[in-house]
Amino acid sequence: MTFTVPIRDQRLILHAVAGIAELPDGPDEDMVEAVLEGAAALAEGEFAPLARSGDLEGARWDNGTVHTPKGFKEAWKAFVDGGWMTLAAPERHGGQGLPFMLSAALMDNLNAANVGFALCPMLSMGAIEALERHGSDELKRDYLPKIISGEWPATMNLTEPQAGSDVGALKSRAEPVGDGSWRIRGTKIFITYGEHDLSEQILHLVLARTPDAPEGTRGISLFLVPKILPDGSRNDLRCVSIEHKLGIHASPTCVMSYGDEDGAIGWLVGPEMGGMAAMFTMMNNARLNVGLQGVGIAEAATQRAVAYAVERKQGQRNRLPVPIAEHPDVRRMLIRMRALTTAARALAYYAFGQVDHGVRGNAEAAARAEVLTPLVKAWCTDIGCEVASLGIQVHGGMGYIEETGAAQHLRDARIAPIYEGTNGIQAADLVGRKLGLDGGLAFDGLVADVRADTDDPRLVALADAVEVAAASLREAAPDDRLAGSYPFLTMTSVMVAGWLVERLGRVEGTDGRTRASADYFLATVVPEALGLGAAAEEGAALLYAVPAEELA
Amino acid sequence: MTFTVPIRDQRLILHAVAGIAELPDGPDEDMVEAVLEGAAALAEGEFAPLARSGDLEGARWDNGTVHTPKGFKEAWKAFVDGGWMTLAAPERHGGQGLPFMLSAALMDNLNAANVGFALCPMLSMGAIEALERHGSDELKRDYLPKIISGEWPATMNLTEPQAGSDVGALKSRAEPVGDGSWRIRGTKIFITYGEHDLSEQILHLVLARTPDAPEGTRGISLFLVPKILPDGSRNDLRCVSIEHKLGIHASPTCVMSYGDEDGAIGWLVGPEMGGMAAMFTMMNNARLNVGLQGVGIAEAATQRAVAYAVERKQGQRNRLPVPIAEHPDVRRMLIRMRALTTAARALAYYAFGQVDHGVRGNAEAAARAEVLTPLVKAWCTDIGCEVASLGIQVHGGMGYIEETGAAQHLRDARIAPIYEGTNGIQAADLVGRKLGLDGGLAFDGLVADVRADTDDPRLVALADAVEVAAASLREAAPDDRLAGSYPFLTMTSVMVAGWLVERLGRVEGTDGRTRASADYFLATVVPEALGLGAAAEEGAALLYAVPAEELA
Repeated sequence: MTFTVPIRDQRLILHAVAGIAELPDGPDEDMVEAVLEGAAALAEGEFAPLARSGDLEGARWDNGTVHTPKGFKEAWKAFVDGGWMTLAAPERHGGQGLPFMLSAALMDNLNAANVGFALCPMLSMGAIEALERHGSDELKRDYLPKIISGEWPATMNLTEPQAGSDVGALKSRAEPVGDGSWRIRGTKIFITYGEHDLSEQILHLVLARTPDAPEGTRGISLFLVPKILPDGSRNDLRCVSIEHKLGIHASPTCVMSYGDEDGAIGWLVGPEMGGMAAMFTMMNNARLNVGLQGVGIAEAATQRAVAYAVERKQGQRNRLPVPIAEHPDVRRMLIRMRALTTAARALAYYAFGQVDHGVRGNAEAAARAEVLTPLVKAWCTDIGCEVASLGIQVHGGMGYIEETGAAQHLRDARIAPIYEGTNGIQAADLVGRKLGLDGGLAFDGLVADVRADTDDPRLVALADAVEVAAASLREAAPDDRLAGSYPFLTMTSVMVAGWLVERLGRVEGTDGRTRASADYFLATVVPEALGLGAAAEEGAALLYAVPAEELA
Repeated sequence: MTFTVPIRDQRLILHAVAGIAELPDGPDEDMVEAVLEGAAALAEGEFAPLARSGDLEGARWDNGTVHTPKGFKEAWKAFVDGGWMTLAAPERHGGQGLPFMLSAALMDNLNAANVGFALCPMLSMGAIEALERHGSDELKRDYLPKIISGEWPATMNLTEPQAGSDVGALKSRAEPVGDGSWRIRGTKIFITYGEHDLSEQILHLVLARTPDAPEGTRGISLFLVPKILPDGSRNDLRCVSIEHKLGIHASPTCVMSYGDEDGAIGWLVGPEMGGMAAMFTMMNNARLNVGLQGVGIAEAATQRAVAYAVERKQGQRNRLPVPIAEHPDVRRMLIRMRALTTAARALAYYAFGQVDHGVRGNAEAAARAEVLTPLVKAWCTDIGCEVASLGIQVHGGMGYIEETGAAQHLRDARIAPIYEGTNGIQAADLVGRKLGLDGGLAFDGLVADVRADTDDPRLVALADAVEVAAASLREAAPDDRLAGSYPFLTMTSVMVAGWLVERLGRVEGTDGRTRASADYFLATVVPEALGLGAAAEEGAALLYAVPAEELA
């Protein structure tokens, strides 16, 4: 199957939803077009051809080294040589300083083409931001230009066996050497691209505790720990093993051991015990990018399903053999896939755009980006799974055969609701922090904007329901609030996405499929979300009626 | 993980929902109990221990022969020696003649324990019924006792490369030999357990066209084609290859080639060109059994997730470390998994029970079984996928690691919405045939029974919505009816399942978790289904707004 980047959709969404033309000091049209076309060529020409072989071959661990699948080195070189890592990176360190929303378009494409590969640059993007905001001038000077160029990919090291969603439970230790450096010791798990052969150097951003640090998240510091030390010697860290996973086989998920001998040498990023703030910089970026994984995989799954459904002949209409795409329930799946994909893309790009506007001084946009982040991370990744699963169904029996490629999309998609904060953590963030941000104004402003912009009665009904649920959750006890958090997140996401696709559908000169997607979304997905109101407001008592053990 | 059969739930559902005690000439309580306990021991002791190794090792093709994973032969022997294949088979051919609903309990267990293995007996069950109802006395005498004993497993051969959902497009040919036998030639794909080493003999039920037969389904005949001919020689058929699939790795999915040399010898089952009637006998049975795959996998996934969630400590409540099961959103997932599993089991056993009552002369029950069949096949398999996916989510990052076992449930579950008639075909069956069965009385009687039995306002509201949608679909043009078929099927299934779990929840002395499941289902799943009404009634115009090609 040939994957084709939906540039027309990207252009439309960047303008009508993300507001690229209204960005102060934003790029001109020629630059936007050049980026969109170059990113498309990279994804289609370099990343997509390795998707299936990367899945089949997978990353291979061999005595501490990790071999990426055949062709990855060459494709990575094309990525670096094309300057793609520099896209949205700060100009003073060698970046192009282009809007974050253009990086969204790039990552959308790379995720669609080959998500197991796209994880490598994704993690570097978060590292660039963390180092730029929190690193010392010396660290920035020594490391930032080469992460930005793409020569030195970076990783995030949070998770430990006992510390997953509860990052405050981590036990890795850091002791001062006395010369400004630290010795790091500990085991980290689930480290994406923790070891590989795409580059000599790999830079690890590692969370650890300094001596006498308090328990919990307050006692955590962030360190930069390079695989190769400045003197050219190997640092005391290694990849102990890689995981055998459901999907993203090309992406090595590493168990990393730091300091088995003298301790791995690292340097503080930000102040001692300021690790969580620095980490959240990386995570917020990464959460939006994981949302884009849902978007990209949905795009690829949709294209594959449509391509199959318009070719595969089966059954008849009016006594003539027809492609299965002509059967109503198959067509329902196809339009649903497209509508969900477009809606998820609109929601994600909108959030990236709000980050851009926020960075350039629009405080309201900055707050809205915070409200949108859990929606993008959770809802877009749920959509990725739903669309990938529909894609299998469209293929019938062939969808279950690995050679077809449809199953890989579901396998690849299924991680996204889990990492970078599970979708349940996102829902907790929405009701716990974002619902009350700026005294509630940030959230209420979003609902008000939806109302002000639509006269679709179905969307108005959903906005009513979201408002009622929000009021109820704000009054609720903590457990009741959390009990309703996930359905509330879904309702809110559908409301915002519905608002944005409605807008796309009425842009003058918009294409037929975008109008059709908007119509389908408003007519069916929005009413479905209304059905979640009861669960959002139900409270926690139902959940705790029996001890958990009895549910087994 | 240890899998434990939920005998208490099975007992409750068999009595309160499936009506085992009211069955004319039904088994006594001691017999029911003996079957439930024996089936549980078989599933837990023989099938479950091979689930993970069967997935890892998979079926292996070697020059036309297929090796099942290590241990399968011994477990199959235990199954056959225990007489489990005889359970619901007719007494006059060596079966025990027990109710179909007890075979449901058996298959529920085997599916939960090891669905890739359970497919082997499942296909034989359909073959027994087809042969018993449609086969000649001679065929029955020669073959039925050994299928029933389990010595000779049977297969179903419908699909060809160009004939999947459209079985009428099949091209395999049968020519009369002159002695009552036929020579079969053709290629069949997706043949489950088409070749294996569990037995010497394998009996293939094969659809093919006789000379001068008309096109389409009217020209199809069913043949019994044994791997080993009565004279002990190999028949002219072979397994050309097996598929590399997303899941059910233990189950060999075979490409079968018939008649590469002189033609494979077979005998007609039923009259010439009566193949579809015979095949539907097998399929109706198989559709209910595939629904049970959803139930069984959901059970296994739920048990695994609960076991993990009550052990895995992460985060705090009231400043104390707690297992993740105590966090509201994790608990929401667990109770949802249990509630959906119980509801799906209730729906499936109810349908099996209606078959039993129908077979014993209750015409209303027979018609109801027909209405329920597409609901069981489609909704229960959708639930299998949803619950398996939730199970991954409960495990967090560990859920994505294959060693954990949670991912296998999703991989295994994903085929069930596809085979034995895709869920879209089931939806078409519901709105195309079942909604109008007996002039609509069969469907309307079901809704009326729900209404008469409940005073839960949420369920009443859903029954209202189903009734409105049913009226609208009955009036609708064919495309509009099909366009709304899938959401309508889901609404109807939730209504029936909600009715049945409500009943389970109020049985005197019922356990706390069943009450909690009923409360959760009525409070959240039933209102969600209400949100599908718009899509059920929307019609087809939205779907065809743009040519399918444009959706790519």
